[in-house]
Amino acid sequence: LVALGGVSLAQAFGEFPAKVPVPANNPMTPEKIALGKQLYFDPRISLSGTESCDTCHNVASNGTDNLAHSFGVFGRVDVPRNTPTVFNAAFNTVQFWDGRANSLEAQAKGPITNPVEMGMPNGEAVVKRLQQIPGYQKEFAQVFGGKDPITFDNVAAAIATYERTLITPDSPYDRYVKGDKKALNASATAGMGLFKSMGCDTCHAGPMFDNPGTPMGTGFFQKFPLQPTNPQCASYEQKYQFMKDPGRFDVTHNPADKYYYKVPGLRNVALTAPYFHNGSVQTLPEAVRVMAACQLGKSLSDEQVKDVVAFLDSLTGKFPKETLPRLPQTPNTTILMGVPQLEKAAAQNK
Amino acid sequence: LVALGGVSLAQAFGEFPAKVPVPANNPMTPEKIALGKQLYFDPRISLSGTESCDTCHNVASNGTDNLAHSFGVFGRVDVPRNTPTVFNAAFNTVQFWDGRANSLEAQAKGPITNPVEMGMPNGEAVVKRLQQIPGYQKEFAQVFGGKDPITFDNVAAAIATYERTLITPDSPYDRYVKGDKKALNASATAGMGLFKSMGCDTCHAGPMFDNPGTPMGTGFFQKFPLQPTNPQCASYEQKYQFMKDPGRFDVTHNPADKYYYKVPGLRNVALTAPYFHNGSVQTLPEAVRVMAACQLGKSLSDEQVKDVVAFLDSLTGKFPKETLPRLPQTPNTTILMGVPQLEKAAAQNK
Ligand code: HEC
Ligand code: HEC
Ligand code: HEC
Ligand code: HEC
Ligand SMILES: [Ca+2]
Ligand SMILES: [Ca+2]
Repeated sequence: LVALGGVSLAQAFGEFPAKVPVPANNPMTPEKIALGKQLYFDPRISLSGTESCDTCHNVASNGTDNLAHSFGVFGRVDVPRNTPTVFNAAFNTVQFWDGRANSLEAQAKGPITNPVEMGMPNGEAVVKRLQQIPGYQKEFAQVFGGKDPITFDNVAAAIATYERTLITPDSPYDRYVKGDKKALNASATAGMGLFKSMGCDTCHAGPMFDNPGTPMGTGFFQKFPLQPTNPQCASYEQKYQFMKDPGRFDVTHNPADKYYYKVPGLRNVALTAPYFHNGSVQTLPEAVRVMAACQLGKSLSDEQVKDVVAFLDSLTGKFPKETLPRLPQTPNTTILMGVPQLEKAAAQNK
Repeated sequence: LVALGGVSLAQAFGEFPAKVPVPANNPMTPEKIALGKQLYFDPRISLSGTESCDTCHNVASNGTDNLAHSFGVFGRVDVPRNTPTVFNAAFNTVQFWDGRANSLEAQAKGPITNPVEMGMPNGEAVVKRLQQIPGYQKEFAQVFGGKDPITFDNVAAAIATYERTLITPDSPYDRYVKGDKKALNASATAGMGLFKSMGCDTCHAGPMFDNPGTPMGTGFFQKFPLQPTNPQCASYEQKYQFMKDPGRFDVTHNPADKYYYKVPGLRNVALTAPYFHNGSVQTLPEAVRVMAACQLGKSLSDEQVKDVVAFLDSLTGKFPKETLPRLPQTPNTTILMGVPQLEKAAAQNK
């Protein structure tokens, strides 16, 4: 297979998609993107008034916070899983490690009302906050129309629309696929060959390295660790405790789904340490060793690890230049005082 | 005095300064501004890895978080004073409510190593974090030169330089001063007249409404409440507990400085609710009533309050269009794991 040669091998994975998938019932418009960006950066949709989507999924960085576990609202330390990047999440066929949301629209409501993330008691409370902000009243009306344009569904639709702009094309790998042979060095092309010949691409397939053509909304799940009895994997398991979390079983309650996870895309994976659903592995070389042992029953040489990592490094794309939104204001007052749940929660935190 | 007429009255306060004051030993350069912006937005200079300057001083908003008291690192609720806006802080002759820093450079080190704000143990720990980030190594060398360009002093110098770009000229008031009579309505011009005739401008003087020409680095301090025995002020004091905080006395330990505060600028004051050093007053009309009673021993009619507020609303300037910085990355690893203080602090928070 390695004999195929670099470029055609790369073509087998495919280059960065020319278009992001958009659901028919939530078309992208410049106004909706702008509104979604404001909401994405607005900490007022969290109970404390301090936690926005951007707090954990930092757009100025790599779309994560590079912590094993993010701190939730009021500094909560019980966020159960590692925070994935929001860059290219638009290409995921399902969202979350366990695939429990089948679209960005369905996903966005999760963290806002999750007590350990943004902590709003319910969607209505979010709507009430936003209704107090004149600029949002106007913008929701312009974007969504209707009598009561500020709804929790519309909040999610706008945020999802903004997220569809957070994509990173034009990685060295993509330039290589397009024919620029100098875009990858010898180590990276060797790593690309190994990635295919070892079988990493049976799971990390396709242009996002996350599935072999699975339709949007369905999800491509695989067991991890797949080979827990492999001695090297067993010692990783002892160290990193991957199997403390039952994975997709939490969603389906089907014992066959125990330890199954959505196969994560690998675009920008060099920037999104630490690794795996529990954020237990600090470095990419170690993550590659874990994958080889636990998914393929293989033990890699240092040289092989270096090469695979060089290939994965070549998947880092170009991040969009973002302007900061301007958040609509509440002149002469603040909506973050006299909020009973906020004051109660802050007092409990003392 | 009101007879002076609108425009000349406004000229008496002065229009938005054409230039921001820059200390001779920290000249502004585009590269230093860019580096300072990255540091300002970088949560990695907090112990938890989640709290940047922007967390409390939100540049996408009004330079504050509109909370009575910000939440510090790990959700701490003991940040003692209300967070002032960072917009136009470059014009303050001293920084902090009690004036304990005499420059932006001196100020910036405060929050980073303040245990209840960003929580870094000391400047060295900040330097160690940044030294692990290759992009910063390069940029500090380019901006500051020398053998060890990453120093805590240089961090502060860069952040201060970025802050000097966060200014908001061209408010309706400024357009009025320049001769555009339609920039203020009748209520705002009446309010401007009252502001002068009542004597608000004895303290809130000059183009930033914070001092009568006090030199940079010195500070213009006044007592608040100045007339605590005025019955209306006494009832506000009972409600809002201003005198729980001894103000500048904390800095000088001189009993004569008890309850003295830096007179805050009033640019964009409409957007920076809640008000006063303890963030106890939710609305601007109420803040105006408090000032009239406690500083001037005056009781205002609803109409007068409305007019003064209309004038203060006219001090809201144009906020700069900001691009998000791109934070330098640490490929294939994260610097936020295995940090003993972080892990200890997170565990204690459980
Ligand atoms: C307190 C931290 C935190 C906040 C705030 C937060 N998230 Fe997340 N996000 C996470 C974590 C943790 C996960 C993974 C949870 C899981 O899979 O069980 C996640 C998952 C996601 C995913 C799925 C990505 C993937 O590859 O599966 C998307 C998309 C996302 N978040 C977007 C958002 C948006 C939009 C907001 C704001 C409305 C937001 N997040 C707020 C921590 C956070
Ligand atoms: C049988 C399926 C399968 C195979 C084969 C496989 N992976 Fe994975 N990979 C997964 C799954 C599932 C996860 C998510 C595991 C988790 O965190 O729970 C994952 C996670 C990863 C991650 C961490 C991603 C992140 O953001 O944390 C990396 C890196 C990775 N794989 C690389 C590889 C490499 C390199 C190979 C080949 C040596 C490989 N994988 C083989 C299924 C597979
Ligand atoms: C946890 C919240 C928090 C964080 C994080 C924070 N600040 Fe502040 N900031 C405050 C508070 C509260 C005050 C007022 C404290 C006082 O006066 O005693 C303040 C005061 C200031 C002032 C003085 C403004 C004035 O008008 O007197 C400036 C300037 C400032 N901060 C800039 C920064 C910078 C730069 C950073 C990051 C290096 C930062 N702040 C981080 C809360 C915060
Ligand atoms: C004797 C001096 C003095 C006079 C006169 C005075 N002020 Fe103030 N003003 C201050 C001081 C000092 C503070 C800060 C008090 C504190 O928060 O501790 C302040 C705070 C304010 C604030 C709140 C600013 C913020 O960001 O929280 C407003 C609004 C204000 N003044 C408006 C007025 C108006 C309107 C008048 C006239 C009715 C007035 N002031 C008269 C000294 C004065
Ligand atoms: Ca990660
Ligand atoms: Ca305030």
